[in-house]
Amino acid sequence: MKSPRALPMTVLAAGLPEQVTIYEVGARDGLQNESAVLPTEVKAEFLHRLAGAGLRVLEATSFVHPKWVPQLADASDLLLRRLVRTEGVDYPVLVPNERGLDRALDAGVQHIAIFASATETFAKRNLNRTLDEQFTMFEPVVRRALAGGLRVRGYLSMCFGDPWEGPVPPDQVAAVARRLAEMGCHQLSLGDTIGTGTPGHVDAVLDACVAAGAPIRQLAVHFHDTYGQALSNTLAALRRGVTTVDASAGGLGGCPYAESATGNLATEDLVWMLDGLGVAHGVDLDTLVATSVWMAERLGRPSPSRVVRALAG
Amino acid sequence: MKSPRALPMTVLAAGLPEQVTIYEVGARDGLQNESAVLPTEVKAEFLHRLAGAGLRVLEATSFVHPKWVPQLADASDLLLRRLVRTEGVDYPVLVPNERGLDRALDAGVQHIAIFASATETFAKRNLNRTLDEQFTMFEPVVRRALAGGLRVRGYLSMCFGDPWEGPVPPDQVAAVARRLAEMGCHQLSLGDTIGTGTPGHVDAVLDACVAAGAPIRQLAVHFHDTYGQALSNTLAALRRGVTTVDASAGGLGGCPYAESATGNLATEDLVWMLDGLGVAHGVDLDTLVATSVWMAERLGRPSPSRVVRALAG
Repeated sequence: MKSPRALPMTVLAAGLPEQVTIYEVGARDGLQNESAVLPTEVKAEFLHRLAGAGLRVLEATSFVHPKWVPQLADASDLLLRRLVRTEGVDYPVLVPNERGLDRALDAGVQHIAIFASATETFAKRNLNRTLDEQFTMFEPVVRRALAGGLRVRGYLSMCFGDPWEGPVPPDQVAAVARRLAEMGCHQLSLGDTIGTGTPGHVDAVLDACVAAGAPIRQLAVHFHDTYGQALSNTLAALRRGVTTVDASAGGLGGCPYAESATGNLATEDLVWMLDGLGVAHGVDLDTLVATSVWMAERLGRPSPSRVVRALAG
Repeated sequence: MKSPRALPMTVLAAGLPEQVTIYEVGARDGLQNESAVLPTEVKAEFLHRLAGAGLRVLEATSFVHPKWVPQLADASDLLLRRLVRTEGVDYPVLVPNERGLDRALDAGVQHIAIFASATETFAKRNLNRTLDEQFTMFEPVVRRALAGGLRVRGYLSMCFGDPWEGPVPPDQVAAVARRLAEMGCHQLSLGDTIGTGTPGHVDAVLDACVAAGAPIRQLAVHFHDTYGQALSNTLAALRRGVTTVDASAGGLGGCPYAESATGNLATEDLVWMLDGLGVAHGVDLDTLVATSVWMAERLGRPSPSRVVRALAG
């Protein structure tokens, strides 16, 4: 029995925010984890289509060294020559260090994101720094960005589980969050990088961050669906008052057919839930699904988003 | 980065039941929706392995006419000759009508389930009856089963959305639930057959059923992951006090690669969440994952369960 036009019935649930900002990471966190390297004009069209679907925050690319992320080596070209900006849309970019900031500033960026680790082991493996040393690396980046009038988002990775350390104590996450907030980050995105978190754990991490001084409005959540928990965890975060949710159009960012899928929460699956809950978000689902279908054709594989598969079938 | 042994951190969430019964539907609802027809001894081994994983309620098969469900045409043979029962495990079977009941009684069944529709259109299409007439069909089945000392579960399909009628009014679901309860069903399984439901809608349906006289302990939930909402909806139901959750090992029952996947909630993904929430369920995840991997090999395709893919990779 097939029902492509079935829609969720809107029934408000108590205790949820009236409105949520979807922080769309497909063009950066999604594409940097795809094996295919897309032409710059395809990325520009992707961003343009995402803006056309009503998304208002689009993480556009990354200024990580091309050696590490060859998929996004064209960041400057994309921003300076290809991207057709839509009015009212924010295009943050990931910046790992001062050299990345220089490139971002040259490209006229207004909003950057830095990528911190909540654990010692991942700091060493991903940043080649200790947990403490990472702040020394970020400090001049954030200072110069703020001095230039930019806004700075702080990503925290491994906020729930760490593949080498196991479960991560919420107070440890909160301590990193606090330092990033004190440094001047306007928003902190709490990432469940390996996807092991569950809803009670989400409550605990958010509560610890709030207790450490970060207001809930400053916190965003970033869930991966490796163990199928991303949307339940998002629901828990919304109940705690979180109003910014990271998601990736079509679930870009982890191949669903690989044994160890680590895909992002699909924006479409999030939109479906928000529509049913009566939480405003501004996205037109049909346009977004069409965009993800278009991107799936470019990547040569179907979208892992369940909503995309159901509606585009 | 791969982390096959990462485990969820147990952090209790307030307002959830301490214990949940997983009503495992893989062998019936799962296999009847797979295109492959498995040998009877494979089904028997599947049930034996599921019992070995700690599941205590296993819907074993269906006595629907083999013309409609050829995958389960061997129901009598399975129960009478192949199945090795595990002590303490309940093996309910689906029974559509009196002829099915006769076959189930001949096979020594103690617990049956009937399959009702919450909507007029689906009653006509699936049962060839009006919404009212379905009760006339069920009445002698339930009466004779109860007289024989059997327990009767009532499934309600299309409790959220109906492909022909759209969103289904919760009061309409509650009216059907009430009639099944009055008839003598000890448990009512509220099915989101097309998977369009969202958490606020779950609250509304449960509240309507309770208001119509069905105690929450009598209600079970049965979610499909067509739009990725199954686990979030389950979380909502647990918060409302539901303690019986239907799930299908490995997510059997809908091909994830088909355009219109209608798969059941995967038992493994549910177990992962319950483990993290500290809700007891009695299932050993590793044994269950190994069972689903074994079954996936029999079916010749990978499990759609995200936990199975992450742990078995």
